[in-house]
Amino acid sequence: MQICLGFKFAGIHCGLKKAEDALDLALILSQTPATAAATFTTNRFPAAPVIYGRRQLAAGESLRAVLINSGNANACTGSQGEIDVLSVAEFLGAALNIKAAEVFISSTGVIGEPLPVTKILKGIEKLVDGVKIPGDPVITFERAVRAIMTTDRFPKMVACQLETSQGRVTINGFAKGAGMIHPNMATMLAYLLTDAKIEKNTWQALLSRVVEHSFNRISVDGDMSTNDTVLALANGASGSFLTTAADLELLENALLQMTQELAYMMVKDGEGATKVVKVMVTGAPSPTAAEKICRAVANSSLVKTAFFGQDANWGRIIAAVGYAGVDLRPELVNIDFDQVRVVSGGVRDRDYREEMGAAVLRLPEFSVKIDLQSGEDEFLLLTSDLTHDYISINADYRS
Amino acid sequence: MQICLGFKFAGIHCGLKKAEDALDLALILSQTPATAAATFTTNRFPAAPVIYGRRQLAAGESLRAVLINSGNANACTGSQGEIDVLSVAEFLGAALNIKAAEVFISSTGVIGEPLPVTKILKGIEKLVDGVKIPGDPVITFERAVRAIMTTDRFPKMVACQLETSQGRVTINGFAKGAGMIHPNMATMLAYLLTDAKIEKNTWQALLSRVVEHSFNRISVDGDMSTNDTVLALANGASGSFLTTAADLELLENALLQMTQELAYMMVKDGEGATKVVKVMVTGAPSPTAAEKICRAVANSSLVKTAFFGQDANWGRIIAAVGYAGVDLRPELVNIDFDQVRVVSGGVRDRDYREEMGAAVLRLPEFSVKIDLQSGEDEFLLLTSDLTHDYISINADYRS
Repeated sequence: MQICLGFKFAGIHCGLKKAEDALDLALILSQTPATAAATFTTNRFPAAPVIYGRRQLAAGESLRAVLINSGNANACTGSQGEIDVLSVAEFLGAALNIKAAEVFISSTGVIGEPLPVTKILKGIEKLVDGVKIPGDPVITFERAVRAIMTTDRFPKMVACQLETSQGRVTINGFAKGAGMIHPNMATMLAYLLTDAKIEKNTWQALLSRVVEHSFNRISVDGDMSTNDTVLALANGASGSFLTTAADLELLENALLQMTQELAYMMVKDGEGATKVVKVMVTGAPSPTAAEKICRAVANSSLVKTAFFGQDANWGRIIAAVGYAGVDLRPELVNIDFDQVRVVSGGVRDRDYREEMGAAVLRLPEFSVKIDLQSGEDEFLLLTSDLTHDYISINADYRS
Repeated sequence: MQICLGFKFAGIHCGLKKAEDALDLALILSQTPATAAATFTTNRFPAAPVIYGRRQLAAGESLRAVLINSGNANACTGSQGEIDVLSVAEFLGAALNIKAAEVFISSTGVIGEPLPVTKILKGIEKLVDGVKIPGDPVITFERAVRAIMTTDRFPKMVACQLETSQGRVTINGFAKGAGMIHPNMATMLAYLLTDAKIEKNTWQALLSRVVEHSFNRISVDGDMSTNDTVLALANGASGSFLTTAADLELLENALLQMTQELAYMMVKDGEGATKVVKVMVTGAPSPTAAEKICRAVANSSLVKTAFFGQDANWGRIIAAVGYAGVDLRPELVNIDFDQVRVVSGGVRDRDYREEMGAAVLRLPEFSVKIDLQSGEDEFLLLTSDLTHDYISINADYRS
């Protein structure tokens, strides 16, 4: 794996997670101020680091460092939570000899518990010592990736190199998120890094577009967290300043693929998930209609449990389409499982046999396509099945 | 249990359910034409019997007979499904020597399979023979109640007698519904019978009001079925014609209590449920805001799994409040578990200890109260927890 120029990484255990060797504090350090873009949760209870980060981005700050802790979300912690974010940022800034305003903070974990600031400050000392020692960037990168995991079963990272008209640039991405993942980004943290140089507004616009078609198109359990953040940093260390339409398109396509890959990994790692299902709505009379129906199906507990049971129970899909709150003509609706036509004109297709649908549902990945035949609009979501392990993981999360 | 005058009941096995002795066909017969009121699912894929029943009610028909089958929903069966409803209604009408238009039909079970009409017609012959034989009304009533059950673990029935200014009247109610139950009524069938006489429009208005505050206030998994129906029949066999405000208020209060009791039983019997939780939102700036937040919390898989895990994870409740799409001031929000103040002003109450919340969550029934302190509006839902048994029941429902 290639790692961007001009970034350093570290991941350590500072005591937020109970297990003794569990990494729980990550640092990303850019040797030069990096142009920053970000998208945040729309939850009305944004966590303290989200409130802080939004202000930073709105003020147009370039960033030098990102500190991410797992094990505690610093959410619903009121003004004390905001004070804690500031303390941590100031401490890290002083330790690195940069401005506190150049330090971005993310947190993920249990909601409503005060942030264990002392543990984090001690951890920062270790982190800062760590990045001073020369090390294999791939190894330190992976330690940072592991330090942000909560219920994730595997680390999620991607890398890509592009040959632009201004020379070679590298992009790295990593993310965490398994349960509580919802279209509008939920307990999902993702970081995109590049050594290209990009103009700030261009960078933000590009990020917003790719997030809309990647992280905002997945759903594990319909819940949306207080902490979701996607942060993108471009530090220009490669010396390549991307300004032409061709270079920017190359970059956007690469980022779209990378974010879609990370999003796919999150669904695959959805808490307890055994299936990745692509739910597509086509032929809708409006984009809103397509989205409403797609979300109703992809979030239905009954549909997701049927996926787990490998039961081609298309009636539950029809029921979810029907309660999405969209006016439609049942007699026009077709449903396919992969290439198998299941429903034609609102009723079971005359050639459909139960075994045909069951064969598709036994696959680890398949698609469900719902064609309303009432327009041109479409929507797509990746979702997972609802399983015993989801219940086990979430019934006992804090114990 | 007292049974209304002028009604007969029967429940038999006609072969729609696989188990040899499983009751799957129920009949309610009124000796005189009964004034009918009903509410139906809002699903855009209404089942054939719902389409038929809506037309009947709109035409203002009085009813003599109700036939209910379990094991097959006759939903997503297209024009054949509608023809099948008519065939069944005509056959039963002929067998009972009444008009087909006086026969009301309900179906519940698997969606998308053709209705096994032959089995039902044979069953009707047995049913009609059955109601000719004098029998204990309590026993035949209970057989009818059992014949409409699907995944229900126990029969749901209520009875009540009222002393009105016009004499004594009796009310009976019964219902089925466990999974797929959603506020707007889902795979939920309920029948309310009285031997009082009531004017048709008064009866419908009264029913609509009580349904809004009982069956439309429960949620098991957020799904809403194609078949939900509440039917209320008043046959006047007691000779008591209720017209005064006092008598009608007495009746409405009784019906409200009875429907709330049936609704409570449905949540208690929610597929795999081990808890009944009352979610209340108070102090909301509008009725819509209260309802949106209440539904977001009561339908959250993460919240419901925490209830199952007896985990006082109030952060998940806060997260659900936050993504309900309602503007609110986090710093005003209070949350109580029963009498225990958990959250004050958007953060953990200073006197709250984990054990206090955990003690409430160990109870089989408790309340979660969310006070927004931003207005006067309220909303309430009964919900259940999300458990391993829910997954087991629904992953294997058809096998």
